Amino acid sequence: MSPKITTELLKQLRQVMKNPRYVQEPVQAYIVPSGDAHQSEYIAPCDCRRAFISGFDGSAGTAIVTEQHAAMWTDGRYFLQAAHQMDSNWTLMKMGLKDTPTQEDWLVSVLPEGSKVGVDPFIIPADQWKRMSKALRSAGHDLVPVKENLIDTIWTDCPQRPCKPLITLDLSYTGLSWRDKIVALRSKMAERKVMWFVVTALDEVAWLFNLRGSDVEYNPVFFAYAVIGVNTIRLFIDGDRMMDPAVREHLQLDSTLEPEFKIQVMPYRSILSELQAVGAGLSPKEKVWLSDKASYALTEAIPKAYRYLTPYTPICIAKAVKNAAETEGMRRAHIKDAVALCELFNWLEKEVPKGTVTEIVASDKAEEFRSQQKDFVELSFATISSTGPNGAIIHYKPVPETNRTLSVNEIFLLDSGAQYKDGTTDVTRTMHFGTPSAYEKECFTYVLKGHIAVSAAIFPNGTKGHLLDSFARSALWDCGLDYLHGTGHGVGSFLNVHEGPCGISYKTFADEPLEAGMIVSDEPGYYEDGSFGIRIENVVLVIPAETKYNFKNRGSLTFEPLTLVPIQTKMIDVNLLTEKECNWVNEYHQKCREVVGAELERQGRHEALRWLLRETEPLARVQ
Amino acid sequence: MSPKITTELLKQLRQVMKNPRYVQEPVQAYIVPSGDAHQSEYIAPCDCRRAFISGFDGSAGTAIVTEQHAAMWTDGRYFLQAAHQMDSNWTLMKMGLKDTPTQEDWLVSVLPEGSKVGVDPFIIPADQWKRMSKALRSAGHDLVPVKENLIDTIWTDCPQRPCKPLITLDLSYTGLSWRDKIVALRSKMAERKVMWFVVTALDEVAWLFNLRGSDVEYNPVFFAYAVIGVNTIRLFIDGDRMMDPAVREHLQLDSTLEPEFKIQVMPYRSILSELQAVGAGLSPKEKVWLSDKASYALTEAIPKAYRYLTPYTPICIAKAVKNAAETEGMRRAHIKDAVALCELFNWLEKEVPKGTVTEIVASDKAEEFRSQQKDFVELSFATISSTGPNGAIIHYKPVPETNRTLSVNEIFLLDSGAQYKDGTTDVTRTMHFGTPSAYEKECFTYVLKGHIAVSAAIFPNGTKGHLLDSFARSALWDCGLDYLHGTGHGVGSFLNVHEGPCGISYKTFADEPLEAGMIVSDEPGYYEDGSFGIRIENVVLVIPAETKYNFKNRGSLTFEPLTLVPIQTKMIDVNLLTEKECNWVNEYHQKCREVVGAELERQGRHEALRWLLRETEPLARVQ
Repeated sequence: MSPKITTELLKQLRQVMKNPRYVQEPVQAYIVPSGDAHQSEYIAPCDCRRAFISGFDGSAGTAIVTEQHAAMWTDGRYFLQAAHQMDSNWTLMKMGLKDTPTQEDWLVSVLPEGSKVGVDPFIIPADQWKRMSKALRSAGHDLVPVKENLIDTIWTDCPQRPCKPLITLDLSYTGLSWRDKIVALRSKMAERKVMWFVVTALDEVAWLFNLRGSDVEYNPVFFAYAVIGVNTIRLFIDGDRMMDPAVREHLQLDSTLEPEFKIQVMPYRSILSELQAVGAGLSPKEKVWLSDKASYALTEAIPKAYRYLTPYTPICIAKAVKNAAETEGMRRAHIKDAVALCELFNWLEKEVPKGTVTEIVASDKAEEFRSQQKDFVELSFATISSTGPNGAIIHYKPVPETNRTLSVNEIFLLDSGAQYKDGTTDVTRTMHFGTPSAYEKECFTYVLKGHIAVSAAIFPNGTKGHLLDSFARSALWDCGLDYLHGTGHGVGSFLNVHEGPCGISYKTFADEPLEAGMIVSDEPGYYEDGSFGIRIENVVLVIPAETKYNFKNRGSLTFEPLTLVPIQTKMIDVNLLTEKECNWVNEYHQKCREVVGAELERQGRHEALRWLLRETEPLARVQ
Repeated sequence: MSPKITTELLKQLRQVMKNPRYVQEPVQAYIVPSGDAHQSEYIAPCDCRRAFISGFDGSAGTAIVTEQHAAMWTDGRYFLQAAHQMDSNWTLMKMGLKDTPTQEDWLVSVLPEGSKVGVDPFIIPADQWKRMSKALRSAGHDLVPVKENLIDTIWTDCPQRPCKPLITLDLSYTGLSWRDKIVALRSKMAERKVMWFVVTALDEVAWLFNLRGSDVEYNPVFFAYAVIGVNTIRLFIDGDRMMDPAVREHLQLDSTLEPEFKIQVMPYRSILSELQAVGAGLSPKEKVWLSDKASYALTEAIPKAYRYLTPYTPICIAKAVKNAAETEGMRRAHIKDAVALCELFNWLEKEVPKGTVTEIVASDKAEEFRSQQKDFVELSFATISSTGPNGAIIHYKPVPETNRTLSVNEIFLLDSGAQYKDGTTDVTRTMHFGTPSAYEKECFTYVLKGHIAVSAAIFPNGTKGHLLDSFARSALWDCGLDYLHGTGHGVGSFLNVHEGPCGISYKTFADEPLEAGMIVSDEPGYYEDGSFGIRIENVVLVIPAETKYNFKNRGSLTFEPLTLVPIQTKMIDVNLLTEKECNWVNEYHQKCREVVGAELERQGRHEALRWLLRETEPLARVQ
């Protein structure tokens, strides 16, 4: 992959940075964050402004362009990718390394005195604005909102904002009607004594109304905001999708309803003016609840004294705890997903030795098998199909320039998942189609030990996920190894594959405690630059654990793997496993056999079934 | 222990809260924090204002008194103790439990509109002031500084502030002269471009000048502040202790020195006016470095634009990494301490069956044996000598009313330590002098497994201690058990037994990364209210670890136990240990034999040596 040449673009950007048509006063620096106006992680093409200006298209990164410099902050997952995709105009700022300056510190070190730093107020979250603004102000600079997005002014062929049809989800998928969700939300609002709640995250709007869309690739969401009052519901959404009779019926738009459940549909763009009107009409003590990650623009629409900001919204927290219908849907989705992967791995095993399977072919084949499954909608993220050294690029996506052929001599890492109407999957398996080296097996086994340590962990109710992160690393640490990413993220139910407020990471201390019904990934890894990558990922459900004792009656939790795909035993050095770990693998494989085996049988996929049975033979430890 | 009757005191306090002699306007609430003007954890009797007003004398707690209510916030270590010591005027606020309100939330819930909340600006740290003030302001209240401490106005028999002689420490103890420490500090100041550094913590003043005192029990510190400029050194200290020729020579007060090393000695009380003078004389860009935990009063002396606040000072960080002289001193101190404890446990073993040994007798005997050791100065904290149900009171200290007799039927927990001129010790052993029950052994063994998991952990350079906390809990969690305190704290070198900036706790995310040379405690436990307490504590030194691989050349760390006191094998259920854990115990005991055995021999303590040899017989696992 060759880097994007950005010399001309940066020149244009630097011109508009002082063009009075766009800025009241020239700005000496311009920040281009990753997100869209909803602080989405995955964004529509029209919102890929940071990738447009820099060439770096990983899912996380912030660009800052000054008159002299252009710098990109990203995390360990993307160090290699960003270095490959950006030209020499750009300096890569490796977040998490000791000597890397923060954006604020860097700005202060390079800016001339009394500079203005511009940013699109719709794109920057309010909490980031606050931090950045404070740091800049204390160094004599100013953070200023630039209403017109400066990237958009130079992006001549910027694609249109998508506006695709909606999918309605009935109770068998959601377990709870949108009316009941509104009732629950209003009761949380009453608890906190707030009069209004502003829904800004796309997955929160989708979840609240039991609707799905496809405006953003991989995430079944649609561009919309909602403002929930104690007696009103306003949905801000564009296009003729509200003309769809199924949607109208689902939202009861044409029914005679109690007024507090009557949804007023308004244009997407009118959110700011409507919110300003709400803000202007507030009486003392009437608070408006927003996420502290809502955009600076929307947050500013509400006078400061009336804002009630929290890191996680009540919708975010309610959405994370899956109900019985959602959990059952997730189980079904994962069984179907396992069927597709058994087919894929069986197929790869036969085809790889022929030397005709590239990373892209394998990725396409995975999608083909998944798309054969019932209620398949789309993939849940860009498939990471990577072999040999490409496996060490943590969030790699094969493109023609890098597309490597799978062979019996290299490790293959496949991190992939799908959106089914009943659930979202995300699974990583690391396979060898020849004979792995002792070192590869050793590293794989440490990663597996870490995976098991988390999956089998028992911990008290109320424990935050970040307290489990070191369990995943302990076996690697013992040998001087580690991996530069977190261990797990929350997973949505036919929603975003990454969702808050829980997770398992050494970095996240603002996570909410794990609760039964939450779903997270468990995905330790090990990566050797230029050689190979290993990751073992299951999606796991938080469930109550039975323990011998029960200290302070707190109760305990553990995880149940929803992902049921064999872990390649060929890669395991059994002698490095404890008896408990060995039993875990054997019990896991037994469950794969039973549950996925039955479904393969039902679908008449006999060859894949034979593959499954062979791959799930019990391990035997030499005593 | 009967609670302190506080009805009359609270009445008096509520009167002065509206007495115009002390407050400009009446305050509707008054906060009484734990600390002194230096934010010390251990405080002199004259600073025990919270204990005076409430009766609760644990090391951590904040009292808030309003016109109607009196409430006390403390953490899990002190729930039982606080409940015992306070009368029914007080509401106990159990910090760390889900339903316990924060001080701010509680104040907002009980105060009438537009209230004033008073606090002594010398006692409240600036960071707490900021948080509290913001929360109160956003609810329409005001936090106001009350210059005269209101507790002092009603505390008629308040003791004098101590002013005891100083001890000078030479290079053989400190490894670095005070001049070299000043040079290193000034270089850190130059790096951050600050002109002044204000030393407010008592242990930082003591460390910087290689002096020790005894103004505060257990902590070898003295009341003083220092202000270090790029060319000046000001030491704020009272009394005739500066007349001591040894001190004068140590500080070179009468020598002809380069002016930048000339120490100006000033009265303790003049710190505020001197600092205000410094603040008034600053030119633009001249910053003053303070801890963000310095008092609000001193912080306010420097205009906001000139303040440079950090959570940890450069002295705090330098002090935490012990040099070779300090490490060797700590080793020597721990060997002497082990000698004393071998004597004690040998003695207890003989005496306990007679039924004459109470907790206080055992505690006194421990001090007696320690005081026989070379360079013994004092205890490093109040000995926790607790048997049976008293062991479940985590920071218990025996007093005549609670003093229980040790017996062959109950577990005995001894958490104790001393200040030697060459180092500070802190060790907990849990012993049974009869036959422990299977359940007691089971719990002890889980705690031991946690202790070993931390002690033997290998982790990358740059890891923060809080990432190791869950290792200590894992074996307990597996059975539904846990303990409600952190796992470890930093330990000073002939200084405070609790010191920052490192530690091992699920609560502390602001800890600095562990580095070779840092010293922390490793002390998991298990407590059953009304029955028994178990804790196993060693002080451990962070050392480089040899690992098979070395990911990203980061290097690895592990711990070396400095404490060398046998862990009672009678309490261990060997079958619950892994082979690795069993080997750890045997190797640890082998080292106790060799190192402490040699010293017992040298001191001619033959009976204690025989006890040591018997107690360190290797464990044998049934395969």
